[in-house]
Amino acid sequence: MSQSRDFLSQRALGVKQSAVRDVFDIAMDPNLVSLAGGNPWLSGLPLDELGKTAGELVSRHGTESLQYGPGQGLEPMRQAACTVMAGDGIPDADPELVVITPGSQAAIDTACRAFANPGDVVVVEDPTFVGALTSFNTWELDAVAAGTDEHGLIPAELDATLELMEAEGRRVAFLYTIPSFANPSGALLPEDRRDEIARICAKHGVLIVEDNPYGQIAFDGRPLAPIAAKHRDQVVYLGTMSKIFSPGVRIGWALVPAALKREFYLSAESAFIHASTHGQMLSTAFVDHFDWQGHVREVSGLYKERAEALWDAVKEHWDPAVEFIRPQGGFFLWGSLPEGADTLELMTEGIKAGAVFVPGAAFTPVEGTHSTLRLAFSFVEAEKLVEGVKRLAPVVNEAVARTR
Amino acid sequence: MSQSRDFLSQRALGVKQSAVRDVFDIAMDPNLVSLAGGNPWLSGLPLDELGKTAGELVSRHGTESLQYGPGQGLEPMRQAACTVMAGDGIPDADPELVVITPGSQAAIDTACRAFANPGDVVVVEDPTFVGALTSFNTWELDAVAAGTDEHGLIPAELDATLELMEAEGRRVAFLYTIPSFANPSGALLPEDRRDEIARICAKHGVLIVEDNPYGQIAFDGRPLAPIAAKHRDQVVYLGTMSKIFSPGVRIGWALVPAALKREFYLSAESAFIHASTHGQMLSTAFVDHFDWQGHVREVSGLYKERAEALWDAVKEHWDPAVEFIRPQGGFFLWGSLPEGADTLELMTEGIKAGAVFVPGAAFTPVEGTHSTLRLAFSFVEAEKLVEGVKRLAPVVNEAVARTR
Repeated sequence: MSQSRDFLSQRALGVKQSAVRDVFDIAMDPNLVSLAGGNPWLSGLPLDELGKTAGELVSRHGTESLQYGPGQGLEPMRQAACTVMAGDGIPDADPELVVITPGSQAAIDTACRAFANPGDVVVVEDPTFVGALTSFNTWELDAVAAGTDEHGLIPAELDATLELMEAEGRRVAFLYTIPSFANPSGALLPEDRRDEIARICAKHGVLIVEDNPYGQIAFDGRPLAPIAAKHRDQVVYLGTMSKIFSPGVRIGWALVPAALKREFYLSAESAFIHASTHGQMLSTAFVDHFDWQGHVREVSGLYKERAEALWDAVKEHWDPAVEFIRPQGGFFLWGSLPEGADTLELMTEGIKAGAVFVPGAAFTPVEGTHSTLRLAFSFVEAEKLVEGVKRLAPVVNEAVARTR
Repeated sequence: MSQSRDFLSQRALGVKQSAVRDVFDIAMDPNLVSLAGGNPWLSGLPLDELGKTAGELVSRHGTESLQYGPGQGLEPMRQAACTVMAGDGIPDADPELVVITPGSQAAIDTACRAFANPGDVVVVEDPTFVGALTSFNTWELDAVAAGTDEHGLIPAELDATLELMEAEGRRVAFLYTIPSFANPSGALLPEDRRDEIARICAKHGVLIVEDNPYGQIAFDGRPLAPIAAKHRDQVVYLGTMSKIFSPGVRIGWALVPAALKREFYLSAESAFIHASTHGQMLSTAFVDHFDWQGHVREVSGLYKERAEALWDAVKEHWDPAVEFIRPQGGFFLWGSLPEGADTLELMTEGIKAGAVFVPGAAFTPVEGTHSTLRLAFSFVEAEKLVEGVKRLAPVVNEAVARTR
């Protein structure tokens, strides 16, 4: 077996976050309350009608829906993506500049392939999406954290980070950012910061990869316009069906500046040829023939209720020294224990107490001990969220006490 | 726009085969006879019944089929993959060692991610699958051709190539090979060569990535056992639903040696999280509840007829100086014009004459002019194949005449 290890690439040998993953594998016990997984709530979908559509796509159009399709994605799917992006706040996206991918993880990964050389820097907000960090890791990129607060990325800190990278002579492949209801922080980047960040990146000649899976899950029903809305030529904008429809169809996309489209599309094709034809056609039907915006309103209302129940529960049951970013949308509540607490350890204790969350270590490129955690409220009913918070309370509160 | 080019990675700037692709974009004209595309024939599928299944997967099981699933793939899908692999000639595959991917292009790409460092060598048969070459290109690997004949890879040439790489101190990430009815050559590697190749790779400590999309499309109904059947620990074996069911569902897999599974699986997850849940469930249903082997027999019979019609047509209408490998299975007929002919040029002339094929340049890592071409017989009715051959005849025959 020792010889077999020689077969592995350096990047495969260096895969991180195994501690989190290993506990996760144990944590699939159905008796646990899961505050960990960011699944969307699907029971509100019109499954009977959608089933009819899914069936007809095969029975009537099977020689198309089960066949190979174009590498860039089917034209109606690219149109549907533009319809969804209009809801995000980009009213004039061009379907010719859309590349459909099998989920937006694949789009993040394609951005690395198309824009980053080994050893390059990707600037990220800290905390950021664990899947993006894994992809950066695999492409042998250095994820460098720029400072954030409860409103997301701090423009001045981004500027300082980019200046430092310049001074060190390092190539910055792109800024990876989730401005709206970020995973994991839930933070919503204010409008003025969006413009400021675009200006700073333009000044430094740095591309922006803007990931916006949660933008329409706005509790007030008013998504903030993405950075890409006003700064199209410097932003690769990522959208997905996962949160507004279904993650199981694995349909995401990138809206790419015209000058970069060909290479992005060829990079995507080299990775997976194209996304599921049937999945594209079902997603297109959902946008074209169903009340998808009504569904988004419905689930956003549900997530708002759950977020409030979770907020009330942590305020009632957890030590007030634990600080939170109050979610205005999205799937997640981000908490910070006092420094010195180790939430990776607490995760194991929490599982013993009957509930599981994701420790902050998963979401940061910074090594060491982390006192942060992510609670997901999207998939679990309010009462269960409260039960999970109660189960975790002694674990969390004792950990806080130990830091005093 | 010139600044935008600075955003691109070295690998994206170096994407090859644009000449072939550019012509392809023009060649979508429905008045052309296409001998180019390797689409499977889907009209023989039981589309009504499959549509019912696809519909019920959403209407009755939508909260599962539209939801996230496990990164390694659903357990029933991994079982179904083992059932298909038993048909390939691997009767005892362990579903625990199967990783489901969104098509087998993604599995090839994952093999690069997990096993290859930038600058490594991948040894390939020449000609080989264009999608694999593109993936190797993107991972900055050197595809090095080992010699082949009409029976595929020549063991002694492989041995010599691996010795040379050793002498040059180069790391060989793996041998990439399609032993059965290869794309594009159609060659079938004999049983004794399979063992010999495994022995040579073991001697040199080189991993084998065995890609077997066409193995069951055997015109005599008797697939040859894959290399992985007897040499499990040194082979990453790739299978797919694309040729025996549907490429549109984008479901492929890798059967990975136990010692490499974890890293392969994590590499896959970092690229795309997991393959379509609905696509996995539909593929599983096809294997578990439909006569999938009957479908394979039916399409293999059809492909055999078409291969014979194409064979007879080229023998009748093309200059006998064009040499072919007679297909015993698969989708493709491989032809070689006398040296000096340039099939990339001929492709353009062929399109003007009303038919399109893929020039050999697409399938080789060797730069320069190529006199080879691939004709696909899987998707086009026999009469149309003959018509395409007739349209191409003056172009091909004049090119042959020019070499004299």
